Amino acid sequence: MAQWVYGFGNGSAQGDASMRSLLGGKGANLAEMSNLGLPVPPGFTLTTELCRYYYDNGHSYPEDLKAQVKDALAKVGEQTGRRFGDAEHPLLLSVRSGARVSMPGMMDTVLNLGLNDVTVEALAQASGDARFAYDSYRRFIQMYGDVVMGVDHHDFEDIIEQIKDERGYVLDTDLSADDWKNVIARYKLLIEDELEEAFPQDGEEQLWGAIGAVFSSWMNARAITYRRLHDIPEDWGTGVNIQAMVFGNMGQDSATGVAFTRNPSTGEKALYGEFLINAQGEDVVAGIRTPQDLTLQARLSGHNQAPSMEEVMPKAFSEFSDICQTLEHHYKDMQDLEFTIERGRLWMLQTRIGKRTGKAALRIAVEMANEGVISRDEAILRIDPRSLDQLLHPTIAEDAERNLVAKGLPASPGAASGQLIFHADEAESLAAQGRRVILARVETSPEDIHGMHAAQGILTARGGMTSHAAVVARGMGKPCVSGAGSLRIDYDKEILSVGHITLKKGDVVTICGSSGEILLGDVPMQKPELTGEFSTLMGWVDEARRMRVRCNAETPQDAKSAREFGAEGIGLCRTEHMFFDEDRISAMREMIFAEDVEARRDALATLLPMQRKDFTELFEIMAGLPVTIRLLDPPLHEFVPHEVEDIAHVAPSLRLTPEALQARITTLHEFNPMLGHRGCRLAITYPEIAEMQVRAIFEAAITAAVKTGRAVQPEIMVPLVGLREELDYVKARIDAVGADVMAEAGRSVDYSVGTMIELPRACLQARTIAESAEFFSFGTNDLTQTTYGISRDDASRFLADYQRLGIIDHDPFISLDTNGVGELIEIAAERGRFARDDIKMGICGEHGGDPASIEFCEKIELDYVSCSPFRVPIARLAAAQAYLKAAEHR
Amino acid sequence: MAQWVYGFGNGSAQGDASMRSLLGGKGANLAEMSNLGLPVPPGFTLTTELCRYYYDNGHSYPEDLKAQVKDALAKVGEQTGRRFGDAEHPLLLSVRSGARVSMPGMMDTVLNLGLNDVTVEALAQASGDARFAYDSYRRFIQMYGDVVMGVDHHDFEDIIEQIKDERGYVLDTDLSADDWKNVIARYKLLIEDELEEAFPQDGEEQLWGAIGAVFSSWMNARAITYRRLHDIPEDWGTGVNIQAMVFGNMGQDSATGVAFTRNPSTGEKALYGEFLINAQGEDVVAGIRTPQDLTLQARLSGHNQAPSMEEVMPKAFSEFSDICQTLEHHYKDMQDLEFTIERGRLWMLQTRIGKRTGKAALRIAVEMANEGVISRDEAILRIDPRSLDQLLHPTIAEDAERNLVAKGLPASPGAASGQLIFHADEAESLAAQGRRVILARVETSPEDIHGMHAAQGILTARGGMTSHAAVVARGMGKPCVSGAGSLRIDYDKEILSVGHITLKKGDVVTICGSSGEILLGDVPMQKPELTGEFSTLMGWVDEARRMRVRCNAETPQDAKSAREFGAEGIGLCRTEHMFFDEDRISAMREMIFAEDVEARRDALATLLPMQRKDFTELFEIMAGLPVTIRLLDPPLHEFVPHEVEDIAHVAPSLRLTPEALQARITTLHEFNPMLGHRGCRLAITYPEIAEMQVRAIFEAAITAAVKTGRAVQPEIMVPLVGLREELDYVKARIDAVGADVMAEAGRSVDYSVGTMIELPRACLQARTIAESAEFFSFGTNDLTQTTYGISRDDASRFLADYQRLGIIDHDPFISLDTNGVGELIEIAAERGRFARDDIKMGICGEHGGDPASIEFCEKIELDYVSCSPFRVPIARLAAAQAYLKAAEHR
Repeated sequence: MAQWVYGFGNGSAQGDASMRSLLGGKGANLAEMSNLGLPVPPGFTLTTELCRYYYDNGHSYPEDLKAQVKDALAKVGEQTGRRFGDAEHPLLLSVRSGARVSMPGMMDTVLNLGLNDVTVEALAQASGDARFAYDSYRRFIQMYGDVVMGVDHHDFEDIIEQIKDERGYVLDTDLSADDWKNVIARYKLLIEDELEEAFPQDGEEQLWGAIGAVFSSWMNARAITYRRLHDIPEDWGTGVNIQAMVFGNMGQDSATGVAFTRNPSTGEKALYGEFLINAQGEDVVAGIRTPQDLTLQARLSGHNQAPSMEEVMPKAFSEFSDICQTLEHHYKDMQDLEFTIERGRLWMLQTRIGKRTGKAALRIAVEMANEGVISRDEAILRIDPRSLDQLLHPTIAEDAERNLVAKGLPASPGAASGQLIFHADEAESLAAQGRRVILARVETSPEDIHGMHAAQGILTARGGMTSHAAVVARGMGKPCVSGAGSLRIDYDKEILSVGHITLKKGDVVTICGSSGEILLGDVPMQKPELTGEFSTLMGWVDEARRMRVRCNAETPQDAKSAREFGAEGIGLCRTEHMFFDEDRISAMREMIFAEDVEARRDALATLLPMQRKDFTELFEIMAGLPVTIRLLDPPLHEFVPHEVEDIAHVAPSLRLTPEALQARITTLHEFNPMLGHRGCRLAITYPEIAEMQVRAIFEAAITAAVKTGRAVQPEIMVPLVGLREELDYVKARIDAVGADVMAEAGRSVDYSVGTMIELPRACLQARTIAESAEFFSFGTNDLTQTTYGISRDDASRFLADYQRLGIIDHDPFISLDTNGVGELIEIAAERGRFARDDIKMGICGEHGGDPASIEFCEKIELDYVSCSPFRVPIARLAAAQAYLKAAEHR
Repeated sequence: MAQWVYGFGNGSAQGDASMRSLLGGKGANLAEMSNLGLPVPPGFTLTTELCRYYYDNGHSYPEDLKAQVKDALAKVGEQTGRRFGDAEHPLLLSVRSGARVSMPGMMDTVLNLGLNDVTVEALAQASGDARFAYDSYRRFIQMYGDVVMGVDHHDFEDIIEQIKDERGYVLDTDLSADDWKNVIARYKLLIEDELEEAFPQDGEEQLWGAIGAVFSSWMNARAITYRRLHDIPEDWGTGVNIQAMVFGNMGQDSATGVAFTRNPSTGEKALYGEFLINAQGEDVVAGIRTPQDLTLQARLSGHNQAPSMEEVMPKAFSEFSDICQTLEHHYKDMQDLEFTIERGRLWMLQTRIGKRTGKAALRIAVEMANEGVISRDEAILRIDPRSLDQLLHPTIAEDAERNLVAKGLPASPGAASGQLIFHADEAESLAAQGRRVILARVETSPEDIHGMHAAQGILTARGGMTSHAAVVARGMGKPCVSGAGSLRIDYDKEILSVGHITLKKGDVVTICGSSGEILLGDVPMQKPELTGEFSTLMGWVDEARRMRVRCNAETPQDAKSAREFGAEGIGLCRTEHMFFDEDRISAMREMIFAEDVEARRDALATLLPMQRKDFTELFEIMAGLPVTIRLLDPPLHEFVPHEVEDIAHVAPSLRLTPEALQARITTLHEFNPMLGHRGCRLAITYPEIAEMQVRAIFEAAITAAVKTGRAVQPEIMVPLVGLREELDYVKARIDAVGADVMAEAGRSVDYSVGTMIELPRACLQARTIAESAEFFSFGTNDLTQTTYGISRDDASRFLADYQRLGIIDHDPFISLDTNGVGELIEIAAERGRFARDDIKMGICGEHGGDPASIEFCEKIELDYVSCSPFRVPIARLAAAQAYLKAAEHR
């Protein structure tokens, strides 16, 4: 016989905290508290298995359920000295949902169940308070009428308003016991009118109605939405907790409250929470009365008048305070509690792990580890890596007034304020004058880089989380809100409009790249506080992780800040970003439009000393750490002007007419640049470009080694390889140039040549490619684009619909698609190691900073992840967590 | 001890025809002929293993080689009654290369080896012809001096010209024995002057020089190029055949000739070839004298004066004729022979499988099968499927004068003539007036479809074998030359120029889509002849194959011609092609620019009857055969105008200003349309489009079933699926619309829903996708694009370099990349069958018509291939061959 019902109360229980899947979180913790001997109103839990049975069997119950419930009810009756349905000593019940994870407010609850025209009298007798009893009864009818019977709760509220009008009352508290009786009569009529059936007087009927309502609420629209948003499987189901009622509203010696064992905002080790005298839980939520502090200290520091619980109910407070300590020690984490005091007696109604801010999480974890409550590994596992974002960037002050203009995607965290500017050149020149600007574009392109650098933050109307703007901004550690689709940007008029709001050039806005908000005016910020706990925890993290963490960086600023954030080398230096400066792009264009190899070599000769300087600086900053340099990757047309005016402006310097230049540009056009003439394809068709870059790398390595006294180990990365033959062709040139430079300098450089694995074909051919490649760096952005067949620049058109329709759970450009892209990476890793067992492997796409993706990287034992500088601490933490989690399976 | 030398001659040999890899083709066949007792001048072959040894060991030979060669020479001496280097009875030798496959003219040959100042006298004595002997000697010096010693052969020719000048001679035949002696003296001086060493008189030295030269020629530039073009591995190496000389130039009873056992042009069963009396093989090639026919019949039908070999040398002819029969029966194939008659005695110098035209191949195979020489299966395997192209399209007449303008890619076979027109509209209106036009574009786009339909042929300056122009033209069965990169097309001036040639609108050109040639003027054509042998063979083919062959078709014309070519259904109906007609594209644009779902539904309602008519016609033509219809696939911006004038023209019909329309069009722009908002992504974001199409399919299926009396089984294909959830979403709508239509009509339709597998992710997720998909159709074009990360529209920029540099062997858009793309298809097939063991699978990319790709499809046991109508016979043949080849391994 299946056990559908688990009882608890009076110092023991049939379940415990480990049975969260079966009993739901609330039920499991009620059982656990009972086992600990804590005062829990006795009751029982209907299992989540019963919920599944209910849905699998057309909303019906197993035959043996009735008997199990009856037995459990009898047991609760014994423990309380009451009997369900008894006219003199009626047992009253609360019926609450409780899923495996908390889904606050999503499902239904019924309180005071068991009241009817007879038992209400007994309650009046027992409490000595008729008004309380009838108020409880009407609350029950209202809740039951709404939740179980489906009568709109506004209709009930209207009746109360009606009576108050008739009687000239202002507050609910003005109603007397008789008034509540009147309300109850009208409630019953309302139900009969609406449903042509009476409000049930039979307790059994009430109970089964409430149980069915709770199970049914698992599939209500808001619960379904919540589950989708939080990745909660539908088949988990909910439990139902049926418990003897306790009343916090039985007079001045009764109360109800909520508490955290530590401060969930700051992490401070001090009881935190509030309570209300003579009230039920729902009154705290309703906010009609101001709750009072729990502790004297909190009252004093809050300068509050109303006395604290510690002062007015010292005995109950002391007991509660002990229970808090017990529970925190027992669960080894900060607890979020609900309690009720009925006539001086404390009852625990709920305990669970408390939610907290990133800052609090850090402090609590570190302090608990230092207190010896948890281990350092456990402390590491307690922190959500994404929460570090809050700590590493300035954010909008919590108490700031927010004047929302629109919302876009939270593309790059942190907040920034400045004047709206629509053109990169102007952004740059204003910034040079010391002005703070926000660059607003429909979307950005590599030609806007200087403006993005100059701006405090970037705002785009189009493009997703991995659009050009988003990727570049994250790389720069600059706040960015992308894809704010409701914005209309008019470059000519230099205005931005959304609905009826129109902002013009120079207007000040604030953007929050952590929330996606665009706010009017200069909103106050708070600075990042890298407190002592931060560095303590990161120290533990670095000891606990196996994978190295590198950064994606090509500028000295980025490289420096990445090192400050703990980067252990550069995993991706995108050399093309180095060519967009004014003096370089013209040489670049000369190179692109060269008539022959000789002219191309001349233009490249101009770029050589600049590249050499770039690399020398990076090598010096990285002082002996590995630096992976990717050869030129994007198609050449990304470097040429496209607007008519720009073409006219640039043509003379190239000794071409605008028409001739336009014609040359047209021949560079590609239908699908992402799949075009780029990556190693450039190095193969124009080997002289790669040769210049490689020469710059080797010369820089020698210069930096001399200067820093540390050997530099450049890792030269050939992008977009799909065939081993491509790599071989380019590698031969790299080796030849390297040999030349080393011979010229009379010094050797310890370099390696590897490839970016970013095409499905490369993954499949990893065995042969690894015969030539000394390292693999997984370029998961492009690998996602090709594996999925979606362009990250265009995908926002439909990915939002996909998420809304539940077709995908998450944007595959943000968190690695482990099924598809991940399988290809696993194949590549396995085949690569087969050919070369000491092959070095890492990941350098946007996913290198995503904790879920980092966990995947640890699973397949990559050597390192590389991410944008600001994400380095997140990656370090995520790498440690991934290692610790994987260790559990070792 | 390794055997480096294999002797042959006098009715036996150490090798045989099966030893082609070791002895080369020539050597193996000389051995085989010896074994058959045919008259072969005795000799021996140095193996290809020796060639590899030579290259692996710095151009040196194994120690035991000398002794083996000496023994072999002695044996040849015995058989000929001569001795190498002997003053009285000298053995003279020919030294020829011979690789595993024929590489005509690529490597070196030395004849008359062994002649020197002494042996030449013996030859004069023996032949009784001093002039012949000294001519032979000077030929040897000239050949040896060029091939072995590296003196330019022009310098030798100059000496002969000099003597002729001095003596006042016109022809070489005017030179006497003494004149040749004079020439020989000057040749020797030339060599000494150039090289400061004498022409070697020692036979051994001559022999080793010649052997080294032949081996070295394996790595000369033209041999390397030839191997690359013909996919011949370098490590195969060449053999060297050393053979006793026989002389066809020893007087009027001597001759030399070449022959085919059947006519290589028509396939007719009749000895075919020519011979020259008193000549050496090189004289036939030199073309100084007109060769004579072999048979009397050939002379008569050719109206030639000179007597045939049958007439002047009846005995030798009869012997030769018997040998031809013997060899053809022995090798079971048409032979290509070389022979020499020395003083009335016939010697066979070579036999090999003869090359032939497609037409001849067909006739020979069918006739040989009917003769019982080979089986029908063998006959099927004898035909190169690609050669059928020649038979299925009109071609330029063989004897036509060709005035070449330029060459592009042979993108769609067949030839066409017409006036050059540069704009699709004009092409259409001129064609409507009955004019024949060739549409010339830089590249074509879907907006040109009507012009392409109207044109006789299509010519583009850009785009590869799978560019839009190429794919559409092949689909239409229209000749197309694409990517003729040397062409400059000026749309404004309406001219086309290449080098100094400029052609203007209206000039007549002829294009040959089989060769890529663009010719001036109206060049005469020859019509396709689908002779009796064609249909006989195709009958056998259809019995022999397992895979079905369908066509890619969406117009009634294409569907009809595909059925004539033997298609067994439609494998891919690209519905978007149905929307480009003038009346449809405007409704399509109304749909695209609709403000809301209702307006979009209104526009779709206009399209519904048109689509229904399209499908009804296809279903009627296919009369019960399966028809796979793909839902709308391309991004919507393919249907909107992009040129300023077109926008201005179209705007009023959409009730928009040109500016507003331009703005709307801009929002549709995509960076990488190939990876953009298309395929099932359209059906998910705009389900009403798919619903209209599905309704049209079901309504058409019912109408056609009523009309033809045959049940129609539509296969509805959802494109670009990467997630099972996408397919499920669209399938739910298909099923719902289907149920509606069936209920309305009161009739049921037996339909299936499947998907195009064209993304790497779909291949990996094939198991879950197959849980919902009833069939898979591999879209290998897109799968190649995504797996390789190359855009077929842009790839021509670097793929040509890739082929030149040997990085790839073949264009992966033409022949399936079995390593990369193929592995994904295999994975998908395996996982798909795991989930659904009766899943139907086919291929519908361009590769469906490529024999090598079809072989792959058979290997993984797909159910069908689908290709453009004109390729259906090729695919049928290739499918049969693939099955027969696979059967060998079963």
